[in-house]
Amino acid sequence: MIIDVHTHVVPENFPEYTGSNAATRWPSMGCCDQPHHKSVLIAGKTFREVSHHSWDVSQRLLDMQVESVDRQVLSPMPELLSYWFDVDDALRMCEHMNQTIASMVASSPAHFYGLGMVPMQDPERAAKEMSRLRADYGLVGIEVGTNINGRPIGDPFFEPIFAAAVEHDLSIFIHALHPAGVERVLGPPAMSALVAFPNETAFAAASLVSGGMLSKYPQLRVGLSHGGGGFALMLPRMMHGWETMGRHLFTESPAELARRLYYDTLVYDNEALHYLIKTFGVEQLMLGSDYPFVIRERLPNKRLQSLGLSEHDLARLQSINAQRFLAC
Amino acid sequence: MIIDVHTHVVPENFPEYTGSNAATRWPSMGCCDQPHHKSVLIAGKTFREVSHHSWDVSQRLLDMQVESVDRQVLSPMPELLSYWFDVDDALRMCEHMNQTIASMVASSPAHFYGLGMVPMQDPERAAKEMSRLRADYGLVGIEVGTNINGRPIGDPFFEPIFAAAVEHDLSIFIHALHPAGVERVLGPPAMSALVAFPNETAFAAASLVSGGMLSKYPQLRVGLSHGGGGFALMLPRMMHGWETMGRHLFTESPAELARRLYYDTLVYDNEALHYLIKTFGVEQLMLGSDYPFVIRERLPNKRLQSLGLSEHDLARLQSINAQRFLAC
Repeated sequence: MIIDVHTHVVPENFPEYTGSNAATRWPSMGCCDQPHHKSVLIAGKTFREVSHHSWDVSQRLLDMQVESVDRQVLSPMPELLSYWFDVDDALRMCEHMNQTIASMVASSPAHFYGLGMVPMQDPERAAKEMSRLRADYGLVGIEVGTNINGRPIGDPFFEPIFAAAVEHDLSIFIHALHPAGVERVLGPPAMSALVAFPNETAFAAASLVSGGMLSKYPQLRVGLSHGGGGFALMLPRMMHGWETMGRHLFTESPAELARRLYYDTLVYDNEALHYLIKTFGVEQLMLGSDYPFVIRERLPNKRLQSLGLSEHDLARLQSINAQRFLAC
Repeated sequence: MIIDVHTHVVPENFPEYTGSNAATRWPSMGCCDQPHHKSVLIAGKTFREVSHHSWDVSQRLLDMQVESVDRQVLSPMPELLSYWFDVDDALRMCEHMNQTIASMVASSPAHFYGLGMVPMQDPERAAKEMSRLRADYGLVGIEVGTNINGRPIGDPFFEPIFAAAVEHDLSIFIHALHPAGVERVLGPPAMSALVAFPNETAFAAASLVSGGMLSKYPQLRVGLSHGGGGFALMLPRMMHGWETMGRHLFTESPAELARRLYYDTLVYDNEALHYLIKTFGVEQLMLGSDYPFVIRERLPNKRLQSLGLSEHDLARLQSINAQRFLAC
């Protein structure tokens, strides 16, 4: 069994904007020259050109067969998370995305799990939405950004959503979004995704480790995209700080807290994966590919097979850990 | 022979401010309750309490004997780099710091190498200063920040200093400074040094790899503090981007460029060091401790000895690579 925990969905269409905010960044779909492609338009500009792999279940099932993936975990393209809308607008987009993903899962439940989205800019409202994700949509968790309008995800401001995740048995998958420090990246816009995402994911992981929520809600199941970015190299420095500068800095050992989090395997390198396994434990890594976007890792299972792991450890990365993360 | 490339100097005193900028952050020294301690005051507040280890050569020599370090590379405490002053004020601080470090080196040349500082906010002027660092001060290079007032160090804006480094045979040691993303760090101020420094150093390394200066000046000798921060986990993603999104993103393979840079060993963890060795090569790492600051690694050589390296590879990390980096 191979489960890919990191795959994205863009719906084929967006509903018309019916709210009252003139300057909203409500997305729409535009046409492309290429067949089966569309442009996600945000504020009148193409944010990303996407293909029908983003919404077409049959196409995904074909690709999964070719690439030896048995199940995909579906989550929204992060730019659709809508934290920058007022909460009523955001709820309309959440409704559309959750419904889209729910339909994809329902069309082939043996092949998909779904993660939805909630209006994190209003944690109480987000928590309320979380109470119906399983019952109304058949979703098993939420995707959230590394930051919500600049506030890091580990901030106790978001305590209602951590409490709701435990109460409603939902997984939380954290994905890089609007990264800090893009002004310190040189090169074309594509460079930000290469350089700023790993740092941003490390900021998010660090905020979980220093923010206290993991100790307060030990049953939380939280996963990080992109192998946690640079977090595995930041962690020993946090440990050193904890040991030499004062225990007040963290509620528990940063390394212990870090080993409660889950991380996908999307680091594009065998040595990096071996280092993540040593740092976080072989029980905490889950295959992830970023399907269907251009930066995705093709044949992610082939890389895992080439790591030289025992059969059981390989199975952990392929599916056992993901099943524990998803409680499926 | 053990060379520690990452040690800092704070002078015992600062000259009075004689410039004409009222709101300058010119530092001064205040008293402390603890003997042999002083407070570095910036804008009327204690920036850091430091001890005489920061300026006292005899004390440093004693510590070096106890901790088995034969030579220290002396560099300014980064907050003294003065990029935020107007260039005349900055030059006065450069003069004071370079003179302080030069005197320490001159007092025991068998035990110290010195890195100076130049006004990077004016690259032409900085390059001019670099022309006299060896002759007037006996310094072998410069310490520079990861960013200069927000501009990443790899920016071609700084080409005059890269050209001058080659022309005058000077090393460049890059140290985390005023990191990006501190607003995404949760916890007391000390947390920023633990979390934001590794990301900031990765931003700087990435800017060198994508900025073009390493290809234009292949003779450059550039070292990064803190093992390059999270850069070693970012690099495979840059490689993946180069291979799948387009060769236009970089002048050469990011991995090849990364293996031209030097990195200190200040990552506080054996597995992390093994991963850096695999990623950057055993020829590119140099012992560094952050002496004499509280976050420093004591007995850095003991960690290197525990890595299980061959005698020659161990010697590379202890001194051979540093000698190549410093051209000493």
